[in-house]
Amino acid sequence: MQLGLIGLGKMGGNMAERLRLGGHQVIGFDFNAEAVQKLTESGNVGVSSLEDMAKKFDGRKAIWIMVPQGKPVDDTIAKLEPLLNKGDILIDGGNSNYKDSQRRHAEVTAKGFHFVDVGTSGGVWGLKEGYSMMIGGDKEPVGYLSPIFETLAPAKDKGWGHVGPAGSGHFVKMVHNGIEYGMMQAFAEGFTIMEKKEELDLNLAQISEIWRYGSVVRSWLLDLTADALSKNPTLDGLSAYVADSGEGRWTVFEAIDLNVSAPVITESLIRRIRSREENNFTDRMLAIMRNAFGGHAVKKD
Amino acid sequence: MQLGLIGLGKMGGNMAERLRLGGHQVIGFDFNAEAVQKLTESGNVGVSSLEDMAKKFDGRKAIWIMVPQGKPVDDTIAKLEPLLNKGDILIDGGNSNYKDSQRRHAEVTAKGFHFVDVGTSGGVWGLKEGYSMMIGGDKEPVGYLSPIFETLAPAKDKGWGHVGPAGSGHFVKMVHNGIEYGMMQAFAEGFTIMEKKEELDLNLAQISEIWRYGSVVRSWLLDLTADALSKNPTLDGLSAYVADSGEGRWTVFEAIDLNVSAPVITESLIRRIRSREENNFTDRMLAIMRNAFGGHAVKKD
Amino acid sequence: MQLGLIGLGKMGGNMAERLRLGGHQVIGFDFNAEAVQKLTESGNVGVSSLEDMAKKFDGRKAIWIMVPQGKPVDDTIAKLEPLLNKGDILIDGGNSNYKDSQRRHAEVTAKGFHFVDVGTSGGVWGLKEGYSMMIGGDKEPVGYLSPIFETLAPAKDKGWGHVGPAGSGHFVKMVHNGIEYGMMQAFAEGFTIMEKKEELDLNLAQISEIWRYGSVVRSWLLDLTADALSKNPTLDGLSAYVADSGEGRWTVFEAIDLNVSAPVITESLIRRIRSREENNFTDRMLAIMRNAFGGHAVKKD
Amino acid sequence: MQLGLIGLGKMGGNMAERLRLGGHQVIGFDFNAEAVQKLTESGNVGVSSLEDMAKKFDGRKAIWIMVPQGKPVDDTIAKLEPLLNKGDILIDGGNSNYKDSQRRHAEVTAKGFHFVDVGTSGGVWGLKEGYSMMIGGDKEPVGYLSPIFETLAPAKDKGWGHVGPAGSGHFVKMVHNGIEYGMMQAFAEGFTIMEKKEELDLNLAQISEIWRYGSVVRSWLLDLTADALSKNPTLDGLSAYVADSGEGRWTVFEAIDLNVSAPVITESLIRRIRSREENNFTDRMLAIMRNAFGGHAVKKD
Repeated sequence: MQLGLIGLGKMGGNMAERLRLGGHQVIGFDFNAEAVQKLTESGNVGVSSLEDMAKKFDGRKAIWIMVPQGKPVDDTIAKLEPLLNKGDILIDGGNSNYKDSQRRHAEVTAKGFHFVDVGTSGGVWGLKEGYSMMIGGDKEPVGYLSPIFETLAPAKDKGWGHVGPAGSGHFVKMVHNGIEYGMMQAFAEGFTIMEKKEELDLNLAQISEIWRYGSVVRSWLLDLTADALSKNPTLDGLSAYVADSGEGRWTVFEAIDLNVSAPVITESLIRRIRSREENNFTDRMLAIMRNAFGGHAVKKD
Repeated sequence: MQLGLIGLGKMGGNMAERLRLGGHQVIGFDFNAEAVQKLTESGNVGVSSLEDMAKKFDGRKAIWIMVPQGKPVDDTIAKLEPLLNKGDILIDGGNSNYKDSQRRHAEVTAKGFHFVDVGTSGGVWGLKEGYSMMIGGDKEPVGYLSPIFETLAPAKDKGWGHVGPAGSGHFVKMVHNGIEYGMMQAFAEGFTIMEKKEELDLNLAQISEIWRYGSVVRSWLLDLTADALSKNPTLDGLSAYVADSGEGRWTVFEAIDLNVSAPVITESLIRRIRSREENNFTDRMLAIMRNAFGGHAVKKD
Repeated sequence: MQLGLIGLGKMGGNMAERLRLGGHQVIGFDFNAEAVQKLTESGNVGVSSLEDMAKKFDGRKAIWIMVPQGKPVDDTIAKLEPLLNKGDILIDGGNSNYKDSQRRHAEVTAKGFHFVDVGTSGGVWGLKEGYSMMIGGDKEPVGYLSPIFETLAPAKDKGWGHVGPAGSGHFVKMVHNGIEYGMMQAFAEGFTIMEKKEELDLNLAQISEIWRYGSVVRSWLLDLTADALSKNPTLDGLSAYVADSGEGRWTVFEAIDLNVSAPVITESLIRRIRSREENNFTDRMLAIMRNAFGGHAVKKD
Repeated sequence: MQLGLIGLGKMGGNMAERLRLGGHQVIGFDFNAEAVQKLTESGNVGVSSLEDMAKKFDGRKAIWIMVPQGKPVDDTIAKLEPLLNKGDILIDGGNSNYKDSQRRHAEVTAKGFHFVDVGTSGGVWGLKEGYSMMIGGDKEPVGYLSPIFETLAPAKDKGWGHVGPAGSGHFVKMVHNGIEYGMMQAFAEGFTIMEKKEELDLNLAQISEIWRYGSVVRSWLLDLTADALSKNPTLDGLSAYVADSGEGRWTVFEAIDLNVSAPVITESLIRRIRSREENNFTDRMLAIMRNAFGGHAVKKD
């Protein structure tokens, strides 16, 4: 079937290709003309404007928005609405806050269109391995889009599902990312403990490879970690700096709002924040307090 | 080859069967006569004493100890030593503290025998899927035992390895379990957040099944979780009580001793401890303090 | 000077009395007629409506609002505005979110009135010991109100200050409460460790009393704790249930928004949340996972 | 009365002076001859060897050991024992591990002497303000020493007490320090949140001064913090590096051994450890994982 796709970056570009290979036609737009050109060359349909996109559809329009969360999504929706007919479908496949998706669903639906939120996991590996998709929204449009989901997913009936009403897709994806933070931090701590046990001279790449088979911690994250460690066992040249996207902090906020105690997901976020603090004020406060009551020496910069 | 096996419980029994299927002969002992009987019936060799076991070996003895960590391991070694010849091998495949393994290696080696420590992961699934084994000790005995490891592992050359000197196997297994605690806690928190988001009425079993394919959190733990949730989606009848074996706390102690900050593994342990505290004194202290300074009401038992 | 006071509860009632003793006249209103009556009997001026209150002022009106944060504050402001003259002052002395105070300041100021936000600490002890006040807002009204602050504070020039622009008072009070959470949790954990060290049979009341003099942890919280423990050393009859007001969670949200890693304040909040979770779902998830991979027994309810 | 004192450093020197002012005679030894000389000049009795010290006593000997915990304490006891008579008293006033104190008590007592463990808090301020002392050991020697405790304490009957059997003094002091870690971290986090709220341009020195009077967080630590901030409001020149002595980590180990969940004290320790980690391996692991699954850019050193 035909699918409009706005945003042909790292994720969008790969998704378009997987859809094409699955027999669909992607009508794709991006502000980056080169990305549009590349889409056309791959056998899909690149367009230079949203108006163009609208004209390429033979019938009912379904347009997948894959742009940074927040204002870009609202802006895109605002530009698309005048080009839609009753019953057309907008899909937000990005990392939006689920509350935004609930609001957008209400707004878009009030105008006679449909809105579907899709939490999409799979990163740069999705083209090859398929995407995991958690889908929120109304039954009819989700059903209509199922050929798309069946192709994007790792298998026709695996790795995707309609999880609940509007916002549910992004809510579940948010929690997914919170869990991901915790798993990553657990692995990172464990490998650090082994790395610091210098007397045993452990080979982290070897150990991660062993664990991939038969262990309780075997996982896709471990597969990737083993691969990364085999290429750079001492993590040379990497900066100890960890970014965080919105979803980790939203998960923490949500847990607190729901009165769920979630120390591990929360600590994982806090540690990422910590990685970006330079000349840490908290630690300098501690140093000056120790000096004040105990006369303990302080290190000078 | 022949392998002595002491401890025919949940783990040991399954290992014996996997070894038999792989063409080895297990000479097995357990204080539980029924377990010995079952071993014999399965086609391996059950014995009623360690002396018996020693006599069943055609040549060099290799005896795998699979008993609870601590004193039982020391007691077993003490009983075995008089039955050994120079060059014979003792293997501790249980969840011993790596410091004990280092000590035992020194003691056993001083007497002319070998000692190999094997951290073994795989739980009740090992018979079918194979065990992940992290092996510490000297090169010669580890090499001698490789046919055993090749059979127990998920594949001949996967899921096992000689990771370092004496104690390394149990050290790496200890860290493995620390990571496992963190991953489990991350999943448990995430599912709880979804469970408490009542307005979305999410189906946890469905979501865990979706995540198994293509998502970043896909993992063996998730496979098991999906299966468990499909059978008991609301966790009815389960008590909110989580035991911990020694390895989680040892990981935390080791991290602190090595000056590695490991908040997530540590919090995972703390939460397990918390699950077992009743009529929590800390919380009652907080309640009485709030009352003392703010006149806030306290709940009475 | 004259001060209007809306809300004659635990905090408000005591403040009125401290102001009266300091030579001021409080014109007080509460929906609870008994509280108003009590105020009149104490020598202040109780009124039965906000209109009445407005009439009692000889000149410029300054009205201190001491009601629950959120809608009650907005409602009160809305009712008061028609009764004010240009230059009159509204003071919010409750536990409002500082963002609300910033908004209210803008709205009230646009209408020609003043708005001052006062974070007030001191609890039920303020009447006797004075209140600590952190004040946000414009310079002129804060200066005008200084006789009030000088009386409410523990000493004329101690325990109060104009800390910054609108919202600053409530921001600083919010952080104050976050710190308070951390201090309380630290004490509560320490006393629990001592309580559980049964072999030493420690007397917690005695120890808290010792620490009050000369130790590094001496503090007002400890004074109160020592008093509480002397009356109920085993915390009998208290429920392990800890409420939290908004300020702890706002502090955590703010820390994350500011990219400040604040693990201790955050954990203190998480533990309070945990104290209210019954039949914890997270722990039941852990129990079922342990059962799934290791065959570990689960406790049944 | 007469008191031997071994260790005339920061703590010991001040204690000797406070005892002298209280009418006692301190017979003091230190490996640093200058410290001994200074003691003599102050009016106490400096000695150049432990043998000398023993000779200076008129009757029953009571010798306070104030040296670094661990081997130095054992070494000092070994040197003293030949110089003691039955019934003489050794006091360990340093920061020893309570398990060492329990062992030493048993060993010293078996030889006919007494051993008293005193957890001593007060830091460099003790000379002026007195020391808080938590005392473990047998009743008779503790009673005998009470004139010493009454002088060292902030007041005759305040700030000291016999808290339990051998080891109790150091156990309680250990927990005291754990609480101290938590309080310090809570303050440090709170001040950091205010420092990072740049739009409000808060004056941390002013705020800490306000809080000293009437607030819930008023405490000696806050008094010292206010003083330190008044001298160096931006903590210029301080390194974000926080040492930890043994007692924080012992508290964490003890909590885990006792199955007490103590997240805040534990996190306080973890954060101190974190302050000393450079080019953090954990964070580099996270960075490389993010890159591996999401193609997220990593910062290069």
